[in-house]
Amino acid sequence: MTEEPLDVAGLRRRLAEFAAARDWQQYHTPKNLVAALSVEASELVEIFQWLTPEESSRVMADPGTAHRVTDEVADVFSYLLQLCDVLDIDPLAALAAKIERNEERFPPV
Amino acid sequence: MTEEPLDVAGLRRRLAEFAAARDWQQYHTPKNLVAALSVEASELVEIFQWLTPEESSRVMADPGTAHRVTDEVADVFSYLLQLCDVLDIDPLAALAAKIERNEERFPPV
Amino acid sequence: MTEEPLDVAGLRRRLAEFAAARDWQQYHTPKNLVAALSVEASELVEIFQWLTPEESSRVMADPGTAHRVTDEVADVFSYLLQLCDVLDIDPLAALAAKIERNEERFPPV
Amino acid sequence: MTEEPLDVAGLRRRLAEFAAARDWQQYHTPKNLVAALSVEASELVEIFQWLTPEESSRVMADPGTAHRVTDEVADVFSYLLQLCDVLDIDPLAALAAKIERNEERFPPV
Repeated sequence: MTEEPLDVAGLRRRLAEFAAARDWQQYHTPKNLVAALSVEASELVEIFQWLTPEESSRVMADPGTAHRVTDEVADVFSYLLQLCDVLDIDPLAALAAKIERNEERFPPV
Repeated sequence: MTEEPLDVAGLRRRLAEFAAARDWQQYHTPKNLVAALSVEASELVEIFQWLTPEESSRVMADPGTAHRVTDEVADVFSYLLQLCDVLDIDPLAALAAKIERNEERFPPV
Repeated sequence: MTEEPLDVAGLRRRLAEFAAARDWQQYHTPKNLVAALSVEASELVEIFQWLTPEESSRVMADPGTAHRVTDEVADVFSYLLQLCDVLDIDPLAALAAKIERNEERFPPV
Repeated sequence: MTEEPLDVAGLRRRLAEFAAARDWQQYHTPKNLVAALSVEASELVEIFQWLTPEESSRVMADPGTAHRVTDEVADVFSYLLQLCDVLDIDPLAALAAKIERNEERFPPV
C-alpha cells in the first residue's frame, strides 16, 4: 500500500503504475477503455434493473448490496481515470467547466 | 462561478446545489442516476465505435472531437458524483480500496 | 423498396446488402457491431431514464415519443441482425434454445 | 418444449407466456426492460472489450466463447421482443421502415 494522498491525481498515478507493472497498457486504447467504462456502468445498472424507485433508494441498507454498489462505483471511477490518463484530460477541470456551462444553460427555477 | 476548490468534495457539493436549485432531486433516485451514468458512458462509446485502435489513440488531435470527448467525460463524472452523493459513497476511498484488492489479486508480472 | 418477405432472414439479407452497397463491411467487425448495439440500447434507455414506472408504461400514447421508441427498437434490432450475420448466428434458434434452458432453470410458480 | 413455429411472433408469445407463468410481468415495465436490454448488450461488449479487431473476428472459432456470444445474443433478442410485446411494437415492420428511410438517407456509393 502506498502513501500517496487520496485525491484524483494520486489515484490516477497509482492506476497508471498498476497497469504498467502488469504490461496492460497495450490493451488500454481509448476505444477499449470507453468500452470497459460502459460495461462497468452497466454492471451498476444490473443491480438496480428490477427495483422500484423506492427500493433503489434503500440499496445501501443491505451490507452485501452496499458492498457490490461501492465496488462497481470504484470500477467506473477507475476506468474513467485511466481514460483521462491516456487522453490527458483533467476530469476535475472538465466537470467544473461543464457545471459552469450548465449553470448558464439551465437557470435555477 | 463559485470559489470552491477544484476537488471531488467541492464538485460533488456544487452538483448537489445545482440539482437542488432546479428541484431536480426528485428525479435523482439511484436507479435513475445509474441509468443516466450508463447513457453518458455510451455517448463516449459512440464517439469511438467505428474507429480503429490507432484512430482511437489520436482523437484528441482534432479540436472538435477533443471537446466532445472531454464533455462526455464530464457528464460521466457528474453522474458518478451525484450517485455517490445520494448513496453516501466516498468514490476516492472506494477506488483506493479496490486498487489494494486488485494489487493482491493480480500480482505484477 | 424490395419485395423480400418481412422475416428475420429477409431483413438480415437486406441489411447485409445495404452495408455492402456502401462499402461499410470494413467497419462491421464483431467488436464494432456490439459497441454500436450497446449504444443503440442506451439510446432507448435515454428516453426512459427520468420517467417513473407509470410514465414509462404510457410512452406510446405520445406520437413523437412512440416514433422515437420504435426507431430505436429498429436500430437495436438492426445491429443485432448484422452481428448475427457476421458471426453466422441464427438468432431465432439461439433464443429458442435459451427459452428452453430457462424453462428448466426457473420452474413456473 | 412447445411446437410453436420458430419465428418472431412465436418466440414473442413464448416469452410472454414464460413471464406470465412466473408472475414476472410486474417487473416488466418498459423502463425496466430497456435497462435489462442495455445490460445484456453490455455483456456482449464485455466479451470483446480487450480484443483486437482481428481477434474479434475469430471469436466463433473457440467453442466456449461461441457459446457465450450466442447466449448473450439470445438475451438481447429476448429483452428486445419482451419490450416490443409490452409496447405493442412490431420489430420486423419497424426495422423494414428504418431500412427504407436509410436507403434514402445514405445513397449507395
